Amino acid sequence: MNNKHNNEYQIVGKRPVRPDAFEKITGKALFGADFFLPGMLYGKVLRSPHAHARILNIDTDKASALPGVRAVVTGRDFPYLRPEGIGDMSRDNLALEKVLYHGHGVAAVAADSLAIAEAALLLIEVDYEVLPVVLSIEEAMKDKIILHDHLYTRSSAIKDPDTTPSNIYQREIEEIGDVAQGFAEADLVLEREFRTPMVHQGYIEPPACLAQWQSVGQSTIWTTTQGHFIIRQLVARMIEMEQSALRVIPTEIGGGFGGKTTPYCEALALMLSKLSGKPVKMTMTREETFRVAGPGAGTLSRIRIGATKSGKITAMDAWIAYESGAFPAAPLGGGMRSMFSSYQVPNQRIEGLAVVMNKPKIRAYRGPGASQATFGTETLLNEMAGKLNLDPIEFRLMNIARDGTNNLSGGTLKSINFEACLNAAKNSAHYQSSIGENTDTTGFGRAIAVGFWRNGGNVSSAEIHMNADGSASLVTGSSDLSGTRISLAMMAAEELQMPLEKIASRVGDTETIGFTSTSGGSRTINATGQAVVNATRDAIHQMKQRAASGWNVPVEEVTWQSGKAVCARLNEEMRAKDICKNAPNTGGPITGRDSLNVPPGVAPSLAVHICDVAVDKETGQTRLLRYTTVQDAGRAIHPDYVEGQLQGGAVQGIGWALNEEYVFDESGVLQNPGFLDYRIPLASDLPMIETVIVEVPNPLHPYGVRGVGESPIVPPLAAVASAISSAIMTPMTELPCSPPRVLKAIQTTGPETVS
Amino acid sequence: MNNKHNNEYQIVGKRPVRPDAFEKITGKALFGADFFLPGMLYGKVLRSPHAHARILNIDTDKASALPGVRAVVTGRDFPYLRPEGIGDMSRDNLALEKVLYHGHGVAAVAADSLAIAEAALLLIEVDYEVLPVVLSIEEAMKDKIILHDHLYTRSSAIKDPDTTPSNIYQREIEEIGDVAQGFAEADLVLEREFRTPMVHQGYIEPPACLAQWQSVGQSTIWTTTQGHFIIRQLVARMIEMEQSALRVIPTEIGGGFGGKTTPYCEALALMLSKLSGKPVKMTMTREETFRVAGPGAGTLSRIRIGATKSGKITAMDAWIAYESGAFPAAPLGGGMRSMFSSYQVPNQRIEGLAVVMNKPKIRAYRGPGASQATFGTETLLNEMAGKLNLDPIEFRLMNIARDGTNNLSGGTLKSINFEACLNAAKNSAHYQSSIGENTDTTGFGRAIAVGFWRNGGNVSSAEIHMNADGSASLVTGSSDLSGTRISLAMMAAEELQMPLEKIASRVGDTETIGFTSTSGGSRTINATGQAVVNATRDAIHQMKQRAASGWNVPVEEVTWQSGKAVCARLNEEMRAKDICKNAPNTGGPITGRDSLNVPPGVAPSLAVHICDVAVDKETGQTRLLRYTTVQDAGRAIHPDYVEGQLQGGAVQGIGWALNEEYVFDESGVLQNPGFLDYRIPLASDLPMIETVIVEVPNPLHPYGVRGVGESPIVPPLAAVASAISSAIMTPMTELPCSPPRVLKAIQTTGPETVS
Repeated sequence: MNNKHNNEYQIVGKRPVRPDAFEKITGKALFGADFFLPGMLYGKVLRSPHAHARILNIDTDKASALPGVRAVVTGRDFPYLRPEGIGDMSRDNLALEKVLYHGHGVAAVAADSLAIAEAALLLIEVDYEVLPVVLSIEEAMKDKIILHDHLYTRSSAIKDPDTTPSNIYQREIEEIGDVAQGFAEADLVLEREFRTPMVHQGYIEPPACLAQWQSVGQSTIWTTTQGHFIIRQLVARMIEMEQSALRVIPTEIGGGFGGKTTPYCEALALMLSKLSGKPVKMTMTREETFRVAGPGAGTLSRIRIGATKSGKITAMDAWIAYESGAFPAAPLGGGMRSMFSSYQVPNQRIEGLAVVMNKPKIRAYRGPGASQATFGTETLLNEMAGKLNLDPIEFRLMNIARDGTNNLSGGTLKSINFEACLNAAKNSAHYQSSIGENTDTTGFGRAIAVGFWRNGGNVSSAEIHMNADGSASLVTGSSDLSGTRISLAMMAAEELQMPLEKIASRVGDTETIGFTSTSGGSRTINATGQAVVNATRDAIHQMKQRAASGWNVPVEEVTWQSGKAVCARLNEEMRAKDICKNAPNTGGPITGRDSLNVPPGVAPSLAVHICDVAVDKETGQTRLLRYTTVQDAGRAIHPDYVEGQLQGGAVQGIGWALNEEYVFDESGVLQNPGFLDYRIPLASDLPMIETVIVEVPNPLHPYGVRGVGESPIVPPLAAVASAISSAIMTPMTELPCSPPRVLKAIQTTGPETVS
Repeated sequence: MNNKHNNEYQIVGKRPVRPDAFEKITGKALFGADFFLPGMLYGKVLRSPHAHARILNIDTDKASALPGVRAVVTGRDFPYLRPEGIGDMSRDNLALEKVLYHGHGVAAVAADSLAIAEAALLLIEVDYEVLPVVLSIEEAMKDKIILHDHLYTRSSAIKDPDTTPSNIYQREIEEIGDVAQGFAEADLVLEREFRTPMVHQGYIEPPACLAQWQSVGQSTIWTTTQGHFIIRQLVARMIEMEQSALRVIPTEIGGGFGGKTTPYCEALALMLSKLSGKPVKMTMTREETFRVAGPGAGTLSRIRIGATKSGKITAMDAWIAYESGAFPAAPLGGGMRSMFSSYQVPNQRIEGLAVVMNKPKIRAYRGPGASQATFGTETLLNEMAGKLNLDPIEFRLMNIARDGTNNLSGGTLKSINFEACLNAAKNSAHYQSSIGENTDTTGFGRAIAVGFWRNGGNVSSAEIHMNADGSASLVTGSSDLSGTRISLAMMAAEELQMPLEKIASRVGDTETIGFTSTSGGSRTINATGQAVVNATRDAIHQMKQRAASGWNVPVEEVTWQSGKAVCARLNEEMRAKDICKNAPNTGGPITGRDSLNVPPGVAPSLAVHICDVAVDKETGQTRLLRYTTVQDAGRAIHPDYVEGQLQGGAVQGIGWALNEEYVFDESGVLQNPGFLDYRIPLASDLPMIETVIVEVPNPLHPYGVRGVGESPIVPPLAAVASAISSAIMTPMTELPCSPPRVLKAIQTTGPETVS
């Protein structure tokens, strides 16, 4: 294990030019829609105009007869799979028995041009039996309208569950200590209900793929995805083929944030290619992306927290329900493992529910489940700090989780220093500054919030091929969501003690590198990073062996220094270039490799955010004045990218807090499926997001990396809402804090505190 | 080593469906010209109208000013490299000081469309000082017109060569025994002069590539090539970049036969992409392919052979000169190592020359150098057999090389059984059949010829990634010239004891697999095959280890049977599927790998061809009546492909013998740069080529493979010419045996025999 300080590294911790930025800025990066094949067809999906309806019949004859139409598919053209797991995934791509949300695919067409494909969709006749819709957690929980006859309430704790059909398909209870006892010890108990809306990840690149079927041999899909191995596995199961019969090539990805982890059009395109005998390209429009491509779950929660007068939290209790959309998918585990896990509170209890309804099936969204769960916790803690007359950071320092804390995070926390993050926030120029004085028309507010994420581990593979000129080609299986390629190359360069320019870094497709889990959960630089370091050390060991063999000394006498094998005793050295050029004659070309499985949760990361707002009391509009993110990165391999993660996560959370929400009409039709009506933050809406990187090395990673992608989206919902609460002196418990809602809060009394 | 008989294998030696054939027949295989990128430009090359001229000036201003033109390059836009090796290669792509053949590139343009690029070429003004041309070996050897001031006659034997400029840039002499003594012991000595023309490989797919430059990070070239690693190395050197800064992705290849082993347009396209900032596609026309894309060398040779009355050959002596075209490139070594190497003759001597002239620079052509060299040897041996009244097969059986023979093949021959091939030919239905009786208008003839090729070894890398469903993805670095992917997969499937359908087989690009030498010289199934078997055994060993660990037994107690790990003592078994599904939890995903370097020449292969012709004495036209190829494959992994190699090589040799030749006018302009005037054999010209596969296992290969691609093109030149000689009772010593030449031979007396 390598626990050097940053200044002991040559490359790690520096800020070299970002090669992926060049490709992207010059338009050369090839995204999902940038692939073309000779004779390629264009695929389009017919989507349901109803949010809930039984499909009685689909007549595709007229569409098939249209000149230029090469194939038409419905759900019946796919292998029949039971309605659960992979069968649900297939049904979500193309409905089989029922449509379950507005925009749900019912048929797909491949034609010579997009115009013909679109014309063909109009010729498909679908007979629907329209059913009533259910659009909210409360309504869904009543089970008056049942979406799936086969779903009932499962729980890991219940051996023989009641199998009466229910929209509540999962119910989990996690508890430590004795919550009742904890509340009995409390001097102050607060309880509130919180709501967060369904939101979209807002990635800029819509889902897109190109598929080429081969009846013998291997079919190929090019797709924009966070995990091409999983896409291969899922599509292969939907189409019932061997994994070896399908190659999935990941393209450059224009954002995913958890939303590009499962197939949307890949299986459809492949089936259309199979039936037409031609390659088929499918690109979702922005509107389709909003309507169909898995948004983040909305939630309803009730949280109760008790503390002593001196500020010691004695009990935390929550009930939280996640929207899952049309099929089971909610991030219950991620939410429950984050909700209270920043704190060392002996009595914690969470009851979590996941509920289906007639909305698009949700997918992961950055720190899945954690932002929604943390919104209530941190908002309530801010209110509590106010009532206890405690500085909100001091209040948290009194209760923060420490090494050895056992809470609902999924185990005992180790090698953490969360106080360091809180202290960095406390000592920041931002927190030390004063905020504006309220006027009649403007309220100023500041709040903080903390966010916990366990960070992912999981399976990664890496290889490094040494070239004859001493340069190297590094390959991993991790889709590059955020410039991870260069950070991985930096670790390889550090190990090889070579200039970074000599290391090419590539994402291998499913055929050219060992299995690697999906990029997500802040796992890549941690788990794939470890695989890269191990693979590079393997290559270095082989180079040392070759040199040792040439000098006729034991390999133990050879060290690796400045890109050279060195034998101090003989006063000999051999450059990587010479070893590699000669490698074919000393045992063959040199490749180092590793595959590993890093357990989850071993390197959690805390984020502390500070937010200053000004609220226009006449319009309810909130202006962000200053925003600081503090986070433990373990080690920032390339600080530019780490800062980018901290800023990007914060901004997504700010959008969630202020403006973003799916707006459905009463029939379940999404009213704002586009960036004009679904407002994500623009640069002009925001101050510069200030960043403070704390580095408490993860002892299980050779460079101490923890992972940084998820934590920054966890605190902003509470930080922004609490700052607004502070500015308008009224609790904000429902998101987004859009001008109408803030205005309404100003004009009415907020929900009453139970104490 | 595995020396089972074919019937002991489950998969090796069988004839499974050819997956590459499906892709090719359905038009889905992606060849060099099938790649497109957004914003892609089209590149075209301005080519010299002179075969020899000094370039005084190139004015590209008008071309650059044409709307839609994005970049113009000349040789001066490339790094200056000394005129040798890589510098010559760069000059062959774009001329610098001089143009050296008609069609030699002088400038290149990238534009928004092909039409604009072509229009721009017309606007480039080049001032030439036209120089006299030299077009034949005899004229070039006179050194009256010198192509390169820096070239002089080098020889591995001469320490201090005369450095007077000369077109003869190489002169080698190889000798064993005492040739003078050998001729003194002979009862019959024959000597003749032979000529073979410059010919083209005739691959169907012209060279084509797509290049995308990146100023930071990694540039990419997609190209149709036999060796993407070598293309990367050469282009990187021409453009002076690190190998790691360039990724070369091999496309499907529509034939190469040695002709696609060096860059034609790759460096130009990359430089145009660099200057324009856009991806650039270049596709050579058929005419450019003939004029520029390295044909096979023409030769002039004089051969003298002596034998006793009983048929024992006592001496073989040759002088042979190879055309090299405009730059050093001739396959002198390949020719000299093949010329006499089928025979165990104690006294052998060859003097070989390589000569430059104002024709396109030649490249390898299947069995490089061997066909031309063997043409004279075998033709003369057939004449000798006739004069000695010996059956030509019996004559060869008396002199054929055996285990332990030391001749000019480059070492002592081992583990061969050339008699087996001759005996198989002798016992074939074809050889046992009778031929037609001559009439006034038709002459019938039969002849045999043998051909020797050392077979290649060289550097190969292979990896096999085990998938979670128990299927596997095999990756090698060997460009698939002829369906090698499936043969490699068959060996992996045989090792894994799994159905072939479970093994995907891919050609990795330069980034995703270890260095692998160019596919050529019949090396792939031998060397890459060994790497595949080793990689697969590595994966199996890891699977056995995982199972052993699960059972808590030493790995030595675990065997691999029918795709399962088996522990007989515990009566336990574990399927690959279960081991691989669980692999992430038992040490990570499983990948087996190997890189190795197989020495050349360890597994030579003999071909024996039998040819029956009918010659129309009035027109000189030859009709092939029957043709049989017999060849030692070592082991035919997939006999369909082996037979395809035997048939394809024979047919290319038949074309060379009968019709193919480069026809230049006196100024050096190629007169027949297209398939209408350069006639390769059509299916309608040919009988079914009969094949007999002999299997004498190569003991150094786990399945006994020798390599089969080159040997079949070695005998046909002599077999066909000798059959015609027999039919018209006149020696044919110059190729092609086109109707005019045959007619002329019929009408005049052939060259006199020296006895």
